[in-house]
Amino acid sequence: MALSTKEITLLELAKGAQQASLKLSSVSTGQKNQALECMADLLVENEKTLIDANAKDLVYGEEKGLSQAMLERLTLTPERIASTADGLREVASFDDPVGEVSETSTRPSGIEVSRMRIPLGVILMIYESRPNVTADAASLCLKSGNAIILRGGSEAFNSNQAIVKLWHQALEEVGLPAQSVQLVPTTDREAVSELLKMDEWIDLVIPRGGEGLIRSVAEQSRIPVIKHYKGVCNLYIDESADLNMAIDLTVNSKVSRPSVCNSLENLLVHQSVAEQVLPLLIEKLKSHTVEVRGCERTRQIVPDVIEATEADWYEEYVDYILAIRVVDDLNMAIDHINRYGSLHTETIVTNDESKSNEFLRRVNSSCVMVNASTRFNDGGQLGLGAEIGISTTKLHAFGPMGLRELTTQKFIVKGNGETRT
Amino acid sequence: MALSTKEITLLELAKGAQQASLKLSSVSTGQKNQALECMADLLVENEKTLIDANAKDLVYGEEKGLSQAMLERLTLTPERIASTADGLREVASFDDPVGEVSETSTRPSGIEVSRMRIPLGVILMIYESRPNVTADAASLCLKSGNAIILRGGSEAFNSNQAIVKLWHQALEEVGLPAQSVQLVPTTDREAVSELLKMDEWIDLVIPRGGEGLIRSVAEQSRIPVIKHYKGVCNLYIDESADLNMAIDLTVNSKVSRPSVCNSLENLLVHQSVAEQVLPLLIEKLKSHTVEVRGCERTRQIVPDVIEATEADWYEEYVDYILAIRVVDDLNMAIDHINRYGSLHTETIVTNDESKSNEFLRRVNSSCVMVNASTRFNDGGQLGLGAEIGISTTKLHAFGPMGLRELTTQKFIVKGNGETRT
Repeated sequence: MALSTKEITLLELAKGAQQASLKLSSVSTGQKNQALECMADLLVENEKTLIDANAKDLVYGEEKGLSQAMLERLTLTPERIASTADGLREVASFDDPVGEVSETSTRPSGIEVSRMRIPLGVILMIYESRPNVTADAASLCLKSGNAIILRGGSEAFNSNQAIVKLWHQALEEVGLPAQSVQLVPTTDREAVSELLKMDEWIDLVIPRGGEGLIRSVAEQSRIPVIKHYKGVCNLYIDESADLNMAIDLTVNSKVSRPSVCNSLENLLVHQSVAEQVLPLLIEKLKSHTVEVRGCERTRQIVPDVIEATEADWYEEYVDYILAIRVVDDLNMAIDHINRYGSLHTETIVTNDESKSNEFLRRVNSSCVMVNASTRFNDGGQLGLGAEIGISTTKLHAFGPMGLRELTTQKFIVKGNGETRT
Repeated sequence: MALSTKEITLLELAKGAQQASLKLSSVSTGQKNQALECMADLLVENEKTLIDANAKDLVYGEEKGLSQAMLERLTLTPERIASTADGLREVASFDDPVGEVSETSTRPSGIEVSRMRIPLGVILMIYESRPNVTADAASLCLKSGNAIILRGGSEAFNSNQAIVKLWHQALEEVGLPAQSVQLVPTTDREAVSELLKMDEWIDLVIPRGGEGLIRSVAEQSRIPVIKHYKGVCNLYIDESADLNMAIDLTVNSKVSRPSVCNSLENLLVHQSVAEQVLPLLIEKLKSHTVEVRGCERTRQIVPDVIEATEADWYEEYVDYILAIRVVDDLNMAIDHINRYGSLHTETIVTNDESKSNEFLRRVNSSCVMVNASTRFNDGGQLGLGAEIGISTTKLHAFGPMGLRELTTQKFIVKGNGETRT
């Protein structure tokens, strides 16, 4: 198949990233940290250039009719630039997972077998709006020894270009290949389709954005994709729950930040405590302007609740809305979650350890909690440091992904001339 | 899209597998082991039934004109059945990775975070010929708590059906769902294409067979695929090598079993020892009927060697053929491997620890060795117990895959009512 000029350019970009990744896989932690510190300095020093480039995007975005929320996410301010620079310095302070040797054992043949942690190689990041991702995601990839290909949205193209220019300056200053961080030079959709076929050069795709974007990437890609479509998080109040704790956790999980994927969408309540807990809980939720939708049994207890339909159990509201279902027992709660859930985050509130153990074991989600707010499911709160994304597919990583999840392990074998018969 | 009757059947099969996997994910190790022991007994007891079913496949295979090698791999004998049964009992004796809790830490918020090992869910295995895979692969999936959908080749259909019937008997006898092990009831190619779209129900695809089969699966699948196309293994003789060891390891890596993926295909020799080692080494290889192809520098030392072309460096011979290249230094050897290799297995022969460390660190393959035969890269030899496949893609698993590689980890969190501000 003859390649067009544009395809050849994309192929060169991908091959260049692979070349850079071979180099990055064995550079010292110190050199990677220098690049991160240098980039942090450059971001602050070039604040005006970045804000000028961003202004062009904002003008274009307004002409294009982007929503106020979108424009807000797109905007770079001195504070945001300073906070991104701080983020880079924090990544520099994290332990480097690359090169770590573990699980050493000597086999009956005499060979010594270990596993060594190594970078994945080349990561393609496809994302929308927020230009800070151009700095954040690249910093995590660089620290973990991976090359990154960035494909941002057209609405942020000037901002992204300005940031990647600084990356090149930082990388060159410390003697690392500039192709470690590259921006796809076009925002055409066909360019994405072409890149998603390059499984010989690219090791992993991480799409970040709406469900439509993610589904389109997942359907086209020949490269492994790490993704999560949505977060339909459930909280189950067991019969043995501390009901005050249950109310606090429900309210916190729902209202502390309803727009994010770890906020609560469905509440399940054991039938034997429903009458006791629901009136007060629903009153509290309503005082936080939460719209409550309930199953038949919920509406028998609190009649002025909107009727929930089956579609509600699948729904990610990311809004001040909560669906409530009264269930017979723990079993029915677990069945509900495994049927309607999104493998994201689920919590049980209980004082019965046999119940919490059963919930932890049988609930099939990437983060399963006891007596804690669903809002704790993110890389920072779970102790991963920064987070490049979250996976609700089980292969490779399941849950939030930090530096370690951007690496894999190879086998290393040390022998003394052992042969095999 | 309206589904045809056949598609609905495949969808039911996949959904049934997912239902079974939810159950399997939390059954006891004892119950899984009972099923494996019971299946081992049933295989031996039903030897005659299996051999009769296999005879039908052999007749069909001969009519179809299968090669003698293919027919040989297809044949079931009492010895093979007994050995498969022993394999199942061995899998029963392995540790169960499921439920293992690790990496516990308490976060500043007060929550206690751990990771719990869980099954992947549903695994689709696509393979050719050998009916013993129908027992072996299913035993590893069952022990690791996964449901398996088996799609064997048409040439083994009767044998596979007979084995799966015994699986159902064994599963039912110990109270596990029969849908834990299912055979796709058709060997149509379209059925595979349909299954490869069912990413909602199936978690992982493992194709085993020729490169054509694997590429076709990888191109069609929306489900993560674990694969390796080929094994182009390299051995590098460094200037500091013990040359007798180097000769032994080269001969063993090449001739102990040339038809398998961990056998040696390319030999790289440091220029400063080439004159010393090549004449004797090539003589030994020829005494084992190995055809030697050499680069220009090799042919200057041993003139009666066939000329190697660039295509030879990419080639998986799986035959009594070896390509030899004289290289300037370690750097050139590593560049050769990272350029032409298949990320499978590479060995350095050296007595210089700085060289071996550099080789271990910079060579980008799933198994990197020092002073040992490439033939040691398999699950048994590396200490994984049995092996369900080998991955040369870096996501999830890299190298041979045992029971642990058929699992993933979820986050579990224990709190005391912690909320997030």
